[in-house]
Amino acid sequence: MTNNSPTLFDLEEPVAKKKKTTKKTAAKSTSKGKTSKAKAPKKETAAAAKSGGRKRSNAEEMATRQRDISVSEFFTKNRHLLGFDSPLKALLTAVKEAVDNSLDACEEAGILPEIAVEITQTGENRFRMAVEDNGPGIIEAQIGKVFGKLLYGSKFHKLSQTRGQQGIGISAAGMYGQLTTGKPVRILSRTSKRKDAHEYLLTIDTARNKPDIHEAKASDWDKSHGTRVEIEMEARYQKGVRSVDMYLKQTAIANPHLTLHYTDPAEEKVTYERNSKELPPETIEIKPHPHGVELGVMIAMLKETKCRALSSFLKEEFSRVGTKVVKDVIKLAGKGLTEKSYPSRIAREEASALHAAIQKTKISSPSTSCIAPIGPELIINGLKKEVEADFYHAVTRPPTVYRGNPFQIEVGIAYGKPGGTGLEVTDEGRIRKKKKSAAEATEDLVGSADEPVRVMRLANRVPLLYQQSACAMTKGVVQTNWRQYGLQHPRGAIPLGPMALMIHIASVWVPFTSESKEALASYPEILKEIRLALQDCGRKLGTHIRKGKQLKREFEKRSYIEKYIPHIGIALQEILDLSEPQRDKTVETLEDVLHKSRKF
Amino acid sequence: MTNNSPTLFDLEEPVAKKKKTTKKTAAKSTSKGKTSKAKAPKKETAAAAKSGGRKRSNAEEMATRQRDISVSEFFTKNRHLLGFDSPLKALLTAVKEAVDNSLDACEEAGILPEIAVEITQTGENRFRMAVEDNGPGIIEAQIGKVFGKLLYGSKFHKLSQTRGQQGIGISAAGMYGQLTTGKPVRILSRTSKRKDAHEYLLTIDTARNKPDIHEAKASDWDKSHGTRVEIEMEARYQKGVRSVDMYLKQTAIANPHLTLHYTDPAEEKVTYERNSKELPPETIEIKPHPHGVELGVMIAMLKETKCRALSSFLKEEFSRVGTKVVKDVIKLAGKGLTEKSYPSRIAREEASALHAAIQKTKISSPSTSCIAPIGPELIINGLKKEVEADFYHAVTRPPTVYRGNPFQIEVGIAYGKPGGTGLEVTDEGRIRKKKKSAAEATEDLVGSADEPVRVMRLANRVPLLYQQSACAMTKGVVQTNWRQYGLQHPRGAIPLGPMALMIHIASVWVPFTSESKEALASYPEILKEIRLALQDCGRKLGTHIRKGKQLKREFEKRSYIEKYIPHIGIALQEILDLSEPQRDKTVETLEDVLHKSRKF
Repeated sequence: MTNNSPTLFDLEEPVAKKKKTTKKTAAKSTSKGKTSKAKAPKKETAAAAKSGGRKRSNAEEMATRQRDISVSEFFTKNRHLLGFDSPLKALLTAVKEAVDNSLDACEEAGILPEIAVEITQTGENRFRMAVEDNGPGIIEAQIGKVFGKLLYGSKFHKLSQTRGQQGIGISAAGMYGQLTTGKPVRILSRTSKRKDAHEYLLTIDTARNKPDIHEAKASDWDKSHGTRVEIEMEARYQKGVRSVDMYLKQTAIANPHLTLHYTDPAEEKVTYERNSKELPPETIEIKPHPHGVELGVMIAMLKETKCRALSSFLKEEFSRVGTKVVKDVIKLAGKGLTEKSYPSRIAREEASALHAAIQKTKISSPSTSCIAPIGPELIINGLKKEVEADFYHAVTRPPTVYRGNPFQIEVGIAYGKPGGTGLEVTDEGRIRKKKKSAAEATEDLVGSADEPVRVMRLANRVPLLYQQSACAMTKGVVQTNWRQYGLQHPRGAIPLGPMALMIHIASVWVPFTSESKEALASYPEILKEIRLALQDCGRKLGTHIRKGKQLKREFEKRSYIEKYIPHIGIALQEILDLSEPQRDKTVETLEDVLHKSRKF
Repeated sequence: MTNNSPTLFDLEEPVAKKKKTTKKTAAKSTSKGKTSKAKAPKKETAAAAKSGGRKRSNAEEMATRQRDISVSEFFTKNRHLLGFDSPLKALLTAVKEAVDNSLDACEEAGILPEIAVEITQTGENRFRMAVEDNGPGIIEAQIGKVFGKLLYGSKFHKLSQTRGQQGIGISAAGMYGQLTTGKPVRILSRTSKRKDAHEYLLTIDTARNKPDIHEAKASDWDKSHGTRVEIEMEARYQKGVRSVDMYLKQTAIANPHLTLHYTDPAEEKVTYERNSKELPPETIEIKPHPHGVELGVMIAMLKETKCRALSSFLKEEFSRVGTKVVKDVIKLAGKGLTEKSYPSRIAREEASALHAAIQKTKISSPSTSCIAPIGPELIINGLKKEVEADFYHAVTRPPTVYRGNPFQIEVGIAYGKPGGTGLEVTDEGRIRKKKKSAAEATEDLVGSADEPVRVMRLANRVPLLYQQSACAMTKGVVQTNWRQYGLQHPRGAIPLGPMALMIHIASVWVPFTSESKEALASYPEILKEIRLALQDCGRKLGTHIRKGKQLKREFEKRSYIEKYIPHIGIALQEILDLSEPQRDKTVETLEDVLHKSRKF
């Protein structure tokens, strides 16, 4: 916020002043720029004196303006990168960051999560969001840094599947609150019954990226363990496709082990009860896979390792490296490297040879115990709970790897609004019109036949609501040929149909297109898996739709036949001179034969 | 890269081991998860013992894993955020960052830029890019930090229009080179003839975000001033819409004062000569406008200011604040604030009242001398130089403001491949078919009639080549109703037509959707201006297209008439018994009358 312009012009005060006026004219009418060119001196020799003789700044002056930029300053100015670009989105982002942290903490501590989200309106454009969990709590010494420092956290340096990964989210939410209301974040946390709860009020010192603690005291919170965060901010609340409500609903679908209480600004309360008492399988932290490590990173690792021999370095710092791989790699690398080479003394050229040798050596794929997909069964359960449809299917692809990071793609579909084809086959093989069910509740998740398919995107069980068009998942949907599965599909767009499509990526490191974690970057390996999963679901969908269409044709044929059978009955009655009961009997038999002769 | 799992399980070694096996089974077949649930103990009392009695981690253990994340580590892991997600894009991003810096430096120093870009293949997947400018050079003490530290620079803290703004770009390019090849960045720089040139070889210490200088020496570079950067990296080179070639071509269009020499990997050389000897008007750094400053920022400013009275604080730290505004604001704020209130002692409540009062007070719009648009004339010149078309038009909107940041939108269009309507009006008022010109060169910039319009996006004169669909400029194009201007326009897509569309935003702070600066965030004020500019160009385009269609109809009518005039001549000859010369004369007169009686 300091103004450097005086130094800019110290050396040539009058020129600068004169220039200011010419400049203004130029800004008003750019067409005048052309004439002034003619007036400029024709010689253009000494470089700095070029272009009308103006000399604006030299290297020394420019150097005085170079300075450090704190990461909090950077993100304050670029807060849209973190998802705080509009008051509507800000509220969602803040709730999301807090809920994600709560879920991560509960799972890490092995606690079945029960989370309460409250949103209260505190002014015309102001809301307070509060998120309270039954997690393990945060020890007092860490509260300041966890909530008051960007790029601080436990999840960044390890390879395991977590919702948070950057150490930015919740501090950024607090920073946004402070930016728009000036108010500090309030944190309540307790780690066990035997210890006091702590209450903190803090802001971030953005110029220095560190917490400013306004108040810290013991509190008589009645919860035995857990954390509560309250942030007041400028925001806007609204229901709909990208609302807090939708985020929470999708979170409940993707986290069947979560019980979630939600109080909206109108004080309406919803509870999503867990339908699974099992936590997601515990994920194991893994070491990097040698095939995913880039040369530069390996050089840094060689420099920093505590191992005193190349062989132990390879075995201990990487996953899937055993004695045989070590031997093969070192032999292939050559350059005088041996198993006993001292890691930090390995020069760039040798490291490069080593890196090349690793890439050429066959090494088993990384362990996938570090990722925990939702699984087809729970996906379908989740979908059924929240989306009423005719047909459900889910696929979990086998785990695979991008840039050395294991990941897994899952896709679930819910097709057909009840009363979509409008037909079903009874147990006796009859086709009948379906009863219409109360589909109002699912309106927002399954659209009608001429609307685009509703795509639900999830990354490590977190719903992604914004930047749909920039996301690899959307690209996967658009690039899949849905026509062959019976849907209408405009070129380069989302297919049309009464369908909800859920795509989930589980990974130790989800590559997002921005810090706000709204869309997945299009790594080719990821896109390929998404397409394969979609095709798998598509084929099943195709069968279902074809069956539906066949049913419909069949139904039409039959209703046609059934329409005329009574007339045939009358005709037969006249020809064969039947009694009325005989005629009715014949008609019934005829209908029966016709039904049995068909496939359904 | 350290592995924390031992601490994770220190307390319960055997359980953890047992769990590992159950987990694996669960991962293989999630359907088994259901059965294991039944086995879990039914009581769920002590929270940490929930869910099958597993206890994974508590608050104390979790605290031991919390740590700082260096900004370079963050961006190494998230290098796609900086534009280094594929080898193809990496090359472009690196060239772009270097060229942007060169242009900024030249303009700041008042030097007409002359830049040389060389790309050399050094291995199967390796390229070296070198960018050399005639700029002011960098003083020796700064070289390390400018190229070897993220978030360091001179452009972040000031409000003025520059290409770079974050202090990340060029260091990130070097970091990518080092990551993929292990090789340092080479820098040559000289600030004046009277001083030595310096040669530096450096890498970034990513764990600490600081430069590691491998070599620094005086060099006998023959350039009198300028900078040369060389980075070797894993990359892929390819021509096309998103190539280095296209970026350089568009840079030449948007910077008519630049002379650019380019040597591609096949050693083919192209030079784009400047067609304007005038530097863009110098932009003045401005102070923040009070209406764009958020409460949190104002509170921080109050704390940090050197001013000793509220009145001088308001006048000196903000733009457009004079004595009257100060009086009005302080009166409206109330809360016991006076002109003499000591800024750093103003509490949050008073600051909040002050902030609210500022928002309610009428203050003149920010000065726009801080932004320098290209101007319609130079846009059209630029387009003409590189795009051959029938019709050109450009609009520069008046400057306006988003979040207190002045910005200006410009749009230029080049419509119709020569030989598009295929018709033109001669000086004598005749319509004739046009000669087809060599349009091959413009193939990549103007497509054919059934192809989407080619959109060129620029921000502060820098072409944006990636993430088109996520960009506010694209949204503006899609949301404009092009049908009314005579183009085909599929719903929700780019309109079709033989047209190149250039959109430029000039601003003191361009809000990008990611650090890689590829797409513009959709601030409503910006989107509105984009639409207005597009509509303006659209109307002119509509007139042109209608005129073209009218011409075509006219031409058809006339050719129809002209076809029959000879027959009328013969008929008249027979009726009036004319001689052959008389008949020809009559036909000629008839044609003449017909041409004159029409509008064209």
